[in-house]
Amino acid sequence: MRTTYCGLVSEALMDQTVTLMGWAHRRRDHGGVIFIDLRDREGLVQIVCDPDRPEMFKTAEGVRGEFCLKVVGKVRARPAGTENANLVSGKVEVLCHELEVLNASVTPPFQLDDDNLSETVRLTHRVLDLRRPAMQKNLMLRYRVAMEVRKFLDANGFVDIETPMLTKSTPEGARDYLVPSRVHDGQFFALPQSPQLFKQLLMVAGFDRYYQITKCFRDEDLRADRQPEFTQIDIETSFLTEEEIRAMFEGMIRTVFKNAIGVDLPVYPVMSYADAMFKYGSDKPDLRVKLQFTELTEVMKDVDFKVFSTPATTPGGRVVALRVPGGGEMSRGEIDGYTEFVKIYGAKGLAWVKVNDVAKGREGLQSPIVKNLHDAAIAEILARTGACNGDLIFFGADKAKVVNDAIGALRIKIGHSEFGKSHGLFDDVWAPLWVVDFPMFEHDEEEDRWNAVHHPFTSPKDGHENLMDTDPGACIAKAYDMVLNGWELGGGSIRIHRAEVQSKVFDALKITPEDAKVKFGFLLDALQYGAPPHGGLAFGLDRLVTLMTKAESIRDVIAFPKTQRAQCLLTGAPSLVDEKQLRELHIRLRNPQAAA
Amino acid sequence: MRTTYCGLVSEALMDQTVTLMGWAHRRRDHGGVIFIDLRDREGLVQIVCDPDRPEMFKTAEGVRGEFCLKVVGKVRARPAGTENANLVSGKVEVLCHELEVLNASVTPPFQLDDDNLSETVRLTHRVLDLRRPAMQKNLMLRYRVAMEVRKFLDANGFVDIETPMLTKSTPEGARDYLVPSRVHDGQFFALPQSPQLFKQLLMVAGFDRYYQITKCFRDEDLRADRQPEFTQIDIETSFLTEEEIRAMFEGMIRTVFKNAIGVDLPVYPVMSYADAMFKYGSDKPDLRVKLQFTELTEVMKDVDFKVFSTPATTPGGRVVALRVPGGGEMSRGEIDGYTEFVKIYGAKGLAWVKVNDVAKGREGLQSPIVKNLHDAAIAEILARTGACNGDLIFFGADKAKVVNDAIGALRIKIGHSEFGKSHGLFDDVWAPLWVVDFPMFEHDEEEDRWNAVHHPFTSPKDGHENLMDTDPGACIAKAYDMVLNGWELGGGSIRIHRAEVQSKVFDALKITPEDAKVKFGFLLDALQYGAPPHGGLAFGLDRLVTLMTKAESIRDVIAFPKTQRAQCLLTGAPSLVDEKQLRELHIRLRNPQAAA
Repeated sequence: MRTTYCGLVSEALMDQTVTLMGWAHRRRDHGGVIFIDLRDREGLVQIVCDPDRPEMFKTAEGVRGEFCLKVVGKVRARPAGTENANLVSGKVEVLCHELEVLNASVTPPFQLDDDNLSETVRLTHRVLDLRRPAMQKNLMLRYRVAMEVRKFLDANGFVDIETPMLTKSTPEGARDYLVPSRVHDGQFFALPQSPQLFKQLLMVAGFDRYYQITKCFRDEDLRADRQPEFTQIDIETSFLTEEEIRAMFEGMIRTVFKNAIGVDLPVYPVMSYADAMFKYGSDKPDLRVKLQFTELTEVMKDVDFKVFSTPATTPGGRVVALRVPGGGEMSRGEIDGYTEFVKIYGAKGLAWVKVNDVAKGREGLQSPIVKNLHDAAIAEILARTGACNGDLIFFGADKAKVVNDAIGALRIKIGHSEFGKSHGLFDDVWAPLWVVDFPMFEHDEEEDRWNAVHHPFTSPKDGHENLMDTDPGACIAKAYDMVLNGWELGGGSIRIHRAEVQSKVFDALKITPEDAKVKFGFLLDALQYGAPPHGGLAFGLDRLVTLMTKAESIRDVIAFPKTQRAQCLLTGAPSLVDEKQLRELHIRLRNPQAAA
Repeated sequence: MRTTYCGLVSEALMDQTVTLMGWAHRRRDHGGVIFIDLRDREGLVQIVCDPDRPEMFKTAEGVRGEFCLKVVGKVRARPAGTENANLVSGKVEVLCHELEVLNASVTPPFQLDDDNLSETVRLTHRVLDLRRPAMQKNLMLRYRVAMEVRKFLDANGFVDIETPMLTKSTPEGARDYLVPSRVHDGQFFALPQSPQLFKQLLMVAGFDRYYQITKCFRDEDLRADRQPEFTQIDIETSFLTEEEIRAMFEGMIRTVFKNAIGVDLPVYPVMSYADAMFKYGSDKPDLRVKLQFTELTEVMKDVDFKVFSTPATTPGGRVVALRVPGGGEMSRGEIDGYTEFVKIYGAKGLAWVKVNDVAKGREGLQSPIVKNLHDAAIAEILARTGACNGDLIFFGADKAKVVNDAIGALRIKIGHSEFGKSHGLFDDVWAPLWVVDFPMFEHDEEEDRWNAVHHPFTSPKDGHENLMDTDPGACIAKAYDMVLNGWELGGGSIRIHRAEVQSKVFDALKITPEDAKVKFGFLLDALQYGAPPHGGLAFGLDRLVTLMTKAESIRDVIAFPKTQRAQCLLTGAPSLVDEKQLRELHIRLRNPQAAA
């Protein structure tokens, strides 16, 4: 019926008759002529309705915003001086011959080009919100990204195999969404947190290369960029090494950026987890920020300043400096603001030194704390940070985790600030990297036990198997994360393919053989039958597209997202259900009045 | 690491050194040499291990079935007379230079080439079952089909947009799977039975052409070919007519058959629902079966045989004949078998006539019932059925639904029988068609109300809108089903895009405006804002692939299916969960002892 999309009408169609379908984005009357900006998913085109076709003109007079229209007309050049360089169709307009109102519209609750709508209004009227050109562009790009991923994987022999949505609850990771079984009284399915075990089973089954773009579910309290259901590009392959997997999927993401948004990503640096924590206090460093930690723990062991010497001499403590070039011009108020900021991350305060004149040593520094530091320490600070006149140096001193979190966040905060951007501390580029060599285990102080950093199916480095018994904290995993601009875009690992190694990991995690059998018996069983060496990774599609579109929230790249209270404002889900439904599922409400 | 797949080693690689990864499918010792059939997802290749490389040979001696192996060796011709024409690699073998056991295997619980395994054994050991070449082929074809669908849709401007899995319960259609909300005490999400409303909303939002290959959920008692979760190719478009939609998706399925399995489907006949019921008693006729109903209702009105005359004179009754060419040779035992068979469908018996000599009229017939029929009726039966000597004519007489179900099933049963196949009553071809012009409503006798045949969002034919008030049974829908070989492969409709028509349908279905607002308010709201004319359809991917692979069950084209009792025998889902989980979800079990 349509000959082309509104947004694609251009000089190439000059003098041709076109049939268009779309929505009245704006209507203006000017000099007795009616102009309608007709909108479809590809963009806008200007329709000109002249009064010399009275029937058509009468219809045009009735058109209001968001009416759905069919237009037949002739493409012609816009009068000189009225071109719109922002539109593909900006040099032309369509002289309307026939106009049909396919469906009228009541007045929308808001203007589609209003950029100051609350998220509540947008999500409640999501259908109209999705008509906004920015949302159309986001979802179209999301599709393009997914399709480029599929093309790349197809060309590399990966096969999309669907894994179950109704599966088994394994309550260690995040909280499961549960689904009561009607057929089996008292039993429940769980929605998958990821297809991790199924994709490993598919490798054991010999499918060699698997992928799936699939929904995963975690019933967690939502942070800004989490959704109860999210989409994962899930991948697994047999017979490839860690390096081969990284090379292949660096290539995939590079191809996707090139083909979907025309961006050439640089070759990824590879950084060890230890290095990333050492230099940036983070396992997902934003390399666009040109600031690094300076390690001072050793230096501060013998200073007469307990704020520094206590963490420097306590196991697990850390002291670092963060040099901010040009930071000397920051006001006391700004510094106080950063002091409040780091408290969010558990820091008790934020020591600082302004470097007025390096050559003068102690005398050239301005700071509440230098009086507590001996000369050697001051010399070491200046030498290690490479401080210059006009710099500001911040300090973090606490348990390593607090220092890393607080000064890591401060690093980002300053880098992204107006100050950072105007002082060359922020490079507005795409900054990807691999973070590798993660530890296998992290120690849970409260419970005094070791937890898996990735998941319990991650393989230790070759030769590290016995460290699991003797020194779990020193055991390094074949795990890798892809980081882009400070976001974890994806991550994965080489998996354990030998039952005896898997059992050792369960031992280290204090999962008894009986427990392991109940929860993962089917995996342990499968590993006995010639399981191949295998590994993989998963990317968060929502995050990837959010980065690529530079959207403000992942909710802007999801058609029908949930709020932070896990509600759909459009449909009103979740909602009350009939008592009969609950009875069939063999469950009842704990608080019946909640449903009243 | 690998240079090619086992199944792809062929003469093209003659004299080259290859590196292969795979599983020991069989091992034979013959003349001091060890032969290993190495298997991967692409097929088998024969590996020859000569004792002249002692270290490698020693490794080969330890190899057992399903060991995972790495082989480096040289491709050479098989000795004359030992070629295997069934394999791509059948003319060659690989002389092994290096052999590495990547992982050993305990003895599998069954032989992979055992074709007589129970489904319980297969689903319990699904990982090994999936290693079977037939299952590998099925799932690889499933992927190829899905990818061909995506390519076709992409080329036609369709955009894959994800719709929510955690959505709102609307308890009319099938039974919902429910998901308790932790954040909202007493409230529940439902898993989608289909993305129907969301895809319509996406059309209202202006995305123009949408698709998704997505999981849908129905908590129904499972018939042979149903699964609790199944995969739908879900499609919606704006601005196309019913005919345009049918043409486009007939083209899609034709392209998929051609590209995935090399089959050219014929052009689809288009048959009205009324015609299909008239000729075949089914809205999904298997046109491979060369048998048709003969209508006799009018003819039997005045016979002195109540079995025929009562249904013939009762509103809603029907009398038909089914002529079986050559059926005269059926034994009384076979006829009795069919009589039992039609009782499954509610028939009370199965009248029959053997045609020995048409020329002799009544005297030429052999039957328990001809004595009850007057001459005119007999003449009419012979004329209308076009009976020939040696034929058998079956009769159905009852309520139309019973006749259609029983004689429709009999038609299929005879057509697919050995008798049918040997008597030319079954054409082993691909027989697709469109069934169109479905009624909008069907009458529920028990509840004395009208129900939607498709769903309440289906548009009536132009001009049929007012029949909804005056004669709902005569109101025809813009609905269409694609049928292949007697299976409903997909179906859809033009949707209602005007709020006032939608309200009329709700009226006809006795859904009050208040109820409609609670359940579908968001749709009715969206229709007010210039909703475009739109329609679409959905295909069952599981069924499509089952047909294409000629698998015995849809469970053979799903990696991890559920049993007919909705259980996963591999993982043991559903299962008991912790009391803590239930407490967080504000629910308790009705029968706590069920979880004991």
